[in-house]
Amino acid sequence: MSAIDDALANNAAYAEQFDQGALTAPPRKQLAVLTCMDARLTVPAMLGLETGDAHVIRNAGGVATADALRSLVISHHKLGVREIMVIGHTDCGMTTFDDGAFRRELESATGRVPVEPAAFHAFPEVEAGVRRQVAAIAQHPWVPEELRVAGFVYDVHDGRVRDVDG
Amino acid sequence: MSAIDDALANNAAYAEQFDQGALTAPPRKQLAVLTCMDARLTVPAMLGLETGDAHVIRNAGGVATADALRSLVISHHKLGVREIMVIGHTDCGMTTFDDGAFRRELESATGRVPVEPAAFHAFPEVEAGVRRQVAAIAQHPWVPEELRVAGFVYDVHDGRVRDVDG
Repeated sequence: MSAIDDALANNAAYAEQFDQGALTAPPRKQLAVLTCMDARLTVPAMLGLETGDAHVIRNAGGVATADALRSLVISHHKLGVREIMVIGHTDCGMTTFDDGAFRRELESATGRVPVEPAAFHAFPEVEAGVRRQVAAIAQHPWVPEELRVAGFVYDVHDGRVRDVDG
Repeated sequence: MSAIDDALANNAAYAEQFDQGALTAPPRKQLAVLTCMDARLTVPAMLGLETGDAHVIRNAGGVATADALRSLVISHHKLGVREIMVIGHTDCGMTTFDDGAFRRELESATGRVPVEPAAFHAFPEVEAGVRRQVAAIAQHPWVPEELRVAGFVYDVHDGRVRDVDG
């Protein structure tokens, strides 16, 4: 059984019990979470979020890319979000490779040089990475000063979220 | 209590019970899910995914942007993912506004014209949108043909995931 078929079978059981059909789009807690795609982060459980509570934006590394900023700008201006958590994590794959070397590998293996992705945004150290993402968001001209933007690191070994400034 | 403080308090309870510290980075089910940031999508529950099973990539609309492609290329080439689910959803905020009008609104409200985000990727219709995202991923030169890329729509009113081709 493929992973997709398995997920669809699980969904059928989920839909049988589903009782959240009355929720509307604006996140109830006016919260957005930007974090990594890593499989070890089960965002709702690790932050106690219920269906309808928060926007969740995820990419490789939890990086404040142009696309993450696009999502956050929509999140605030269209859907009323007022707090943003940026969560990196320990043992992140993005600290294990070199951007340029990976690109050259792909180009050489495929013989193809696509325009995008133009960079992979690998970074050497998680805490410093999170601080940079927080600054990039807070300083964006379309992110008003009154939004709270805070940075954290999730420890995949003990399940704990720690403040990068704490 | 702010939403962030609330999430941190919830996390303390989660960490007390945490027993997944031995997991490694490659997703156990070799699956990646690309979907929308919408607060009504609780991805692990709706697909029956456990901690460690799958990469989850989320942005406004679940769009196959350059950044989502960056994440998916890393997901496959660095972490062994072999199946990709693209999941749009009913009642998506991205079908409710016009890209250019939103940009002009922000420029006029803030007096600032940042280079990025260059577009908001609003779309008029969800199913057609999902089909375009699937095609953009499957056709990317760094996504090998043997990857399964399939498109779905999640119904926020009944909790069901439906195949866009079904």
